[in-house]
Amino acid sequence: MRIDVINPNTTASMTAAIGHAAQAVAAPGTRIVATQPSFGAPSIEGHHDEVWGAAGVTEQVRLGQAAGADAFVIACFGDPGLAAARELASGPVIGIAEAAFHCASMLATGFSVVTTLTRTCVIAEHLVVQYGFERTCRGIHGTDIAVLELEDPASDAYGRILASARDALARDRSGAIVLGCAGMADLCRRLQQALGVPVVDGVVAAVKLAESLVSLGLGTSKAGDYARPLPKTYVGLAAPHGPVAN
Amino acid sequence: MRIDVINPNTTASMTAAIGHAAQAVAAPGTRIVATQPSFGAPSIEGHHDEVWGAAGVTEQVRLGQAAGADAFVIACFGDPGLAAARELASGPVIGIAEAAFHCASMLATGFSVVTTLTRTCVIAEHLVVQYGFERTCRGIHGTDIAVLELEDPASDAYGRILASARDALARDRSGAIVLGCAGMADLCRRLQQALGVPVVDGVVAAVKLAESLVSLGLGTSKAGDYARPLPKTYVGLAAPHGPVAN
Amino acid sequence: MRIDVINPNTTASMTAAIGHAAQAVAAPGTRIVATQPSFGAPSIEGHHDEVWGAAGVTEQVRLGQAAGADAFVIACFGDPGLAAARELASGPVIGIAEAAFHCASMLATGFSVVTTLTRTCVIAEHLVVQYGFERTCRGIHGTDIAVLELEDPASDAYGRILASARDALARDRSGAIVLGCAGMADLCRRLQQALGVPVVDGVVAAVKLAESLVSLGLGTSKAGDYARPLPKTYVGLAAPHGPVAN
Amino acid sequence: MRIDVINPNTTASMTAAIGHAAQAVAAPGTRIVATQPSFGAPSIEGHHDEVWGAAGVTEQVRLGQAAGADAFVIACFGDPGLAAARELASGPVIGIAEAAFHCASMLATGFSVVTTLTRTCVIAEHLVVQYGFERTCRGIHGTDIAVLELEDPASDAYGRILASARDALARDRSGAIVLGCAGMADLCRRLQQALGVPVVDGVVAAVKLAESLVSLGLGTSKAGDYARPLPKTYVGLAAPHGPVAN
Amino acid sequence: MRIDVINPNTTASMTAAIGHAAQAVAAPGTRIVATQPSFGAPSIEGHHDEVWGAAGVTEQVRLGQAAGADAFVIACFGDPGLAAARELASGPVIGIAEAAFHCASMLATGFSVVTTLTRTCVIAEHLVVQYGFERTCRGIHGTDIAVLELEDPASDAYGRILASARDALARDRSGAIVLGCAGMADLCRRLQQALGVPVVDGVVAAVKLAESLVSLGLGTSKAGDYARPLPKTYVGLAAPHGPVAN
Amino acid sequence: MRIDVINPNTTASMTAAIGHAAQAVAAPGTRIVATQPSFGAPSIEGHHDEVWGAAGVTEQVRLGQAAGADAFVIACFGDPGLAAARELASGPVIGIAEAAFHCASMLATGFSVVTTLTRTCVIAEHLVVQYGFERTCRGIHGTDIAVLELEDPASDAYGRILASARDALARDRSGAIVLGCAGMADLCRRLQQALGVPVVDGVVAAVKLAESLVSLGLGTSKAGDYARPLPKTYVGLAAPHGPVAN
Repeated sequence: MRIDVINPNTTASMTAAIGHAAQAVAAPGTRIVATQPSFGAPSIEGHHDEVWGAAGVTEQVRLGQAAGADAFVIACFGDPGLAAARELASGPVIGIAEAAFHCASMLATGFSVVTTLTRTCVIAEHLVVQYGFERTCRGIHGTDIAVLELEDPASDAYGRILASARDALARDRSGAIVLGCAGMADLCRRLQQALGVPVVDGVVAAVKLAESLVSLGLGTSKAGDYARPLPKTYVGLAAPHGPVAN
Repeated sequence: MRIDVINPNTTASMTAAIGHAAQAVAAPGTRIVATQPSFGAPSIEGHHDEVWGAAGVTEQVRLGQAAGADAFVIACFGDPGLAAARELASGPVIGIAEAAFHCASMLATGFSVVTTLTRTCVIAEHLVVQYGFERTCRGIHGTDIAVLELEDPASDAYGRILASARDALARDRSGAIVLGCAGMADLCRRLQQALGVPVVDGVVAAVKLAESLVSLGLGTSKAGDYARPLPKTYVGLAAPHGPVAN
Repeated sequence: MRIDVINPNTTASMTAAIGHAAQAVAAPGTRIVATQPSFGAPSIEGHHDEVWGAAGVTEQVRLGQAAGADAFVIACFGDPGLAAARELASGPVIGIAEAAFHCASMLATGFSVVTTLTRTCVIAEHLVVQYGFERTCRGIHGTDIAVLELEDPASDAYGRILASARDALARDRSGAIVLGCAGMADLCRRLQQALGVPVVDGVVAAVKLAESLVSLGLGTSKAGDYARPLPKTYVGLAAPHGPVAN
Repeated sequence: MRIDVINPNTTASMTAAIGHAAQAVAAPGTRIVATQPSFGAPSIEGHHDEVWGAAGVTEQVRLGQAAGADAFVIACFGDPGLAAARELASGPVIGIAEAAFHCASMLATGFSVVTTLTRTCVIAEHLVVQYGFERTCRGIHGTDIAVLELEDPASDAYGRILASARDALARDRSGAIVLGCAGMADLCRRLQQALGVPVVDGVVAAVKLAESLVSLGLGTSKAGDYARPLPKTYVGLAAPHGPVAN
Repeated sequence: MRIDVINPNTTASMTAAIGHAAQAVAAPGTRIVATQPSFGAPSIEGHHDEVWGAAGVTEQVRLGQAAGADAFVIACFGDPGLAAARELASGPVIGIAEAAFHCASMLATGFSVVTTLTRTCVIAEHLVVQYGFERTCRGIHGTDIAVLELEDPASDAYGRILASARDALARDRSGAIVLGCAGMADLCRRLQQALGVPVVDGVVAAVKLAESLVSLGLGTSKAGDYARPLPKTYVGLAAPHGPVAN
Repeated sequence: MRIDVINPNTTASMTAAIGHAAQAVAAPGTRIVATQPSFGAPSIEGHHDEVWGAAGVTEQVRLGQAAGADAFVIACFGDPGLAAARELASGPVIGIAEAAFHCASMLATGFSVVTTLTRTCVIAEHLVVQYGFERTCRGIHGTDIAVLELEDPASDAYGRILASARDALARDRSGAIVLGCAGMADLCRRLQQALGVPVVDGVVAAVKLAESLVSLGLGTSKAGDYARPLPKTYVGLAAPHGPVAN
C-alpha cells in the first residue's frame, strides 16, 4: 500500500521530518511517500497561506493519484484542500486535524488542542465545528511559537508546549491533548510521558486511519459531493492544474 | 468609494454581467471595478474549482488593495477565499452567499436557496452552518443547470429556476428565495415578480452591504484572526503572491 | 426614501439623539423620521419594559406605514416588537441588535457586546441564539450603567464603556465590539479610535441596512409568517391598535 | 394555594372554558382564578396579537400578585409575556407551551405539535429552540382552524385535529401529541383515547407544574434576570402599568 | 396513587432518607414506596457503578409494575436506566436529574449544578445535552464529596456545598442551584434560605412531576421507542430479568 | 496485540460470526478474541436489552483486562457500556457505532444508517448527537428485520437491506451507508459492490481503529472521567462484578 503524506508547505526539512514520523508508524507493507507542492508558502500560519497550501495539495494529489497512491494524508493542522483532494482521489484522504480529533474523542470525554500562533486558533475552531467536535474539544490554545521555530532547538518549543498543555488540562478539565501542528510530531511521545495523558499527533493518527480504510476496501465516495471534478480548461498559472476527464 | 467586485472564475462575459448588475445598484459616488483572476477555472462547480478560485481571489484583493479599493465583493456563491481576502484587505470584504443569507434572514423567518449543480449544494450547506443560518435556511435545492448555461438563452434557465423556487417555497414553508449563483443576478427581479416573495441576489446585496460598512467607517478588524498575513517568500508559481510587509 | 427610526422608549431627548445619529449616516435621498410611542417606559431595562416597548413599536409602525414609510428601524438593543412590526410593514424592518450582529460578523471572526445593566444581558443572549450568532458572539458584558445615565456627562459612561470593551477584547479574544444600547451611538467613533478595532453601533448599521434593502426593491415577505395581521377588533386601551383590513 | 390562569386574549367564553379545565385537575386545596386582560385581542393568531397579549398578561400578573396569587399560568401557546411576568411575580409563572413541551418530553422520545393557523407555527418553532426541545419536538403542524372556531361545534375541529395528529405521528415517528392552543383543552382526553398515545394539553400541565413548584417552596428567582422590574413612571395609555417599588 | 421511588444503589439508609424526603412532599393520596435493587453498588460514582445501577433499576421497575405502581422515580442524578424503565412501565418514569433541570429552567434563565465527585460531572454534562439544557445549565461543579460522606455529619458536606453554590452563582451568573445527588435532598431548604435563590432537589421535584402526570391521565407512550420490551429468554445471572409477554 | 471483540448478546453463533469478520481484517500480529457475556439477552433490540448488554460488557472487559487484552471492541450498534468499559480498560475501547460513524464521515459529506428494528432507531439517533455527527448523518432507517433473522438465509435480509440502502441514498442525498448492526458484517462487501458507494461495517472498522490506537501507544485516558472505577463491594448478583483496587 502506498500512502502519500503531503506537507502543504514548501519547507523540505519539514517534509522529511513528517515523512520520517509517518514511516515510523506505518505497517510493514505500507510505503510512505512524503511530498510537498512545487509552489506555495514555507509555513502555513493564516488563511492566506492556507489558500495557497490548498492549491498545492491539489497538485500533489493529482500527481499521486496518477502514480497509484492508495491514500493521502494532508499534513497541516488546518486540513487545507481536504474536500478538493477528495474529489481528485479514489482512495481515502485524511486531514491531520480531523484524524487527531477523531482519535482523541475515543480516548477521553474531552480534549484540548495546543497549537502554534494564536491567530491560527480560529482555523482549528472552525474545523471543530465543521467536524462536529464542539462538545468534545474543550479548548484551543495558542503558544505563539512560529511553525519553523519548532525545528530550532534553541526555541525551547518543547518546554513551552508542555507548559501550555499542563495549563490546558487543568483549565479545560480535559483528559487528552491534541498537537495542533504537523511540526510537533516528534515531541509527541515525550509529552505523553511527561503529562500522563494521551497526546495525539495528527500525522501518525492520519497514517493509521488511512491504512485502516484502505485495508477495509473503503475509499472516497464518488457518488455525490466528492465526485471527480468536472473536466475543465484552467488558464494562466493554473493551466497545468485543470481537471481532465478520467 | 471604489468597490472591487471579484468574479473568481475566468469567464470574462460573466465578469462583465456581474459588474453591470453591481453598478446598477451602486450609490452615485460608488465606482464598481469588476475583475477576475489572471488564472483559474472558467466556472466554479465543486471543491477543486473553489480552491483555485480562492487563490485567484487573493491575487485580485492584493491588486485591488494596492490600487486603493475601499471594499471587496467575492462574487461566487461559495465565498471562496473570504477569510484570506479579509487578511489582505483594510476595508470590508463581503461574500455573496453571506450577503444573501444575512439579507434574506431580515425579510422572512425562513428562506430557501436555489442553486446550480446538485453537487455544489454541500458547499452552501457548510456555509449555512459556518455563518449560523442553520435554523433560517430551510432548504438548498440544486437545479442541475451548469453555471455557464445561465448565459445561454436556449437553456431555459429562467423557467427551471422558477419551477424549483416555487417548489422550494411550498415544500420548505419559506418566505423568501436566495439565488445560489452570481450568474443568476439578472433573473432576480423577474423571479421576484413571478413568485411574489423577496428574491435575494447576493451580488447586489453584497455591494450594498459593502457600501454601508464603508460609509460607516467600518473595515475588517486587523486585531486578531484577520491581521495582515505574515510577510513570507512564496516559491514556484506562487512566488508573485507571497505577502509582503506593509 | 423615508426611514422611520423608532425609539421604543418615551424619552424625547434620546429619540432626538438617535434621530441625529441616524440622519448623519443617511444617504442624500433618505429622510429619517425619528419617533417614539405615545406611551410606555422612559427606558427599556428589562423584560417588563420591553413588553410595553414592543406595544409602542406597533403603534409607530402602524402610523409610519400609513404615512408611507419605506422602512423601519427599531432603536432598542432588545429589538422589541420586531416580528409584530414585520407583520405590519411592507418594507423592511430592522432591529438594531440584529443589525449590529450581522455587521460585526462580517468584520471579525468573533465580537463582544458591551451593554448597560447586567440584568439585560440575558435579553441579548436570547437574541444571539435566535439570530444564529452563538458562535460569533464571544461575550456579553454588562457595565451597570443605566440607560439614561448615558446622557449624563457626569456619569463617565465613556470611560467605563471603554474599560469594559478593552477587557472584553482581551478576555473573549474578540476582534470587534458591538455597542449594546441605542444610547451609545454617539460614543462609537471615539471608542473605535481608542480601541483600534471596529466598533459597531446598531442604530447607524440598521439605517444603512434598511436603505440597502429598500434600494434593492426588497421588503418584508408577505407570504407566510410575516403576512399582515388578521383584522380584529381589539378592546380596552388596545382598541385603537387593532389591525384593520388592508 | 391560589393559581391565576391568565387567558391573554379577551374572549370571556374562552377564559371560562380554560378556567374550567384548570379547576378540573387542580388539587383539593388549589383555587383557580381564571382571568383575562382588560384590553387586547379576541384571539392570539400572530406576532401582533402576541405583543398586545403580552402587555395584557403583565396587567393581570400585577393585579394577581397584589391579590396574593401563589403562581401564574399563561394560557396561550406562544407563552406571551412570560419573562416579564416572571419579573413581576414572586411565585412560579408557567407558560402552557413550555409546560406541554416539558411533560411530553418525559413521556416519549419525540413528540409532534398540532396547532391552529399555519402562520403561527413559527411562534412555536422559536419557543422549541429557546426552551431546548429542538431534538425532542419532531414536527409542528398547522390545521388552519382559527382559534375561535374551536368553540364552534359546526367547525369539526375535533375531526380535523384528529386527522392532523394521526398524520403527524406517522410522518414524524412521534410517540406523543402536544395540543398547540389553549382552546383545545377539552378535546384532550377524547383525542388520547382515539390515538392511543399521550396527548398533552398545556393548560392542565401548567396548572400541575405550578402546583408542584409552589408545594416545594420554589418560586421565581429574584436574583438576576428575573429581578423585580425597576420602578419607573410609564406614560400615556401605559401609565397605570408602570412598575412601582416594592 | 402509588409512586415507587427507586434508589439505584444498595445503601438502605440512603433509600430510607430518600423515601422520607419523597413522602414529605407527596400529596395526601400518594403512597411513596422507596426501594432499592437486590444487587449492585453501595453508591453510584462513575460509569461502571451506573451500568449496574441501571440493571438494578430494571429489576425494581419490573417488580413495581407487577405490584401496581402508578409511576416511578429514579433517585440517582445520572438517571440510570431511564429509557429501559420507560419500556417496562405503563405510567410515567421520571429521573431526578431530568426533573431538577426541567423545574430549574422554569424559575431562572440559567442554573448551576453542584454535585459530588468531579469525575461524575461528565455524566451530568451528557444529560444536559441529551435533555436540551445546554443553554440553560451554565455550569456543573464537583465538590469532591463522596456520596456516602453526605450522610456523615463530620464531613461538613453542608458547608462545602454552600460554598460551592455561592461560587457557582457568581461565576456562572446563575439564578438557581440544582443539587446533583439524591443524597443532598435534606440540605435543600437550608441551602435555599442561605443562598436566597431557588435550590432544586431532584427527588422531590420528580415526585411532584410524577404525581402531576398521573393525575392528568398521562403515562409513558407505548407507541414507538418506549414500547414494551420484546419477550426474550435471558440467561445466566440475568435469567430472572428477561422480559415476558404482557 | 490482543483485541477482545465483545458481542454484548449471548448468541454464540453471532459471536463466532463477528469474531470471524474481525479476524479477517486483523493485521498479521493481531489476535482477535471474540467473547460474549455469561449472562444477558440473546439479541439487543431495545433499551432494556441494552442495559443488560452493558452489564455483560463490563464482565468481559474486566476479564479481558485481567488477561492482558490490549484493546476492546463492543460489537453492538448501540455501543452499550462504552463509558464503563473505558473506566475498566487501560487500552482503547471502541464501539462499533462510533467506529462506523467516524469512518463514514471521512469518506462522504453525508451518510445514512440502515439498521434492524425501527424501535431501535432512537438509540442510534442519541449516539449520533452524543458523538457529534448530527450534521453528517443524514438519516437512520429501520428495516424491521430482527437481529437473529440476519442469520437466517430464508429471511432475504440482504435484499431488504439493499432496497432500504438504495432508498436512503436517494432520499437523504448521502454518499455512504453505515450498517446498523454487528450481525450485518458479512453483507458489507456485497452491498458495497451493488450500491457503488462505501458501505461501512462497524465491527471491522472498530478493529482497525483499535489496532491503530494501540500501535500508536495510545490508550484510554486515566486522568479524569475515565479513571479506574473506585473499588467498592457490590452485593447480590452483582457481587462478582464490584471494582477492585488495582
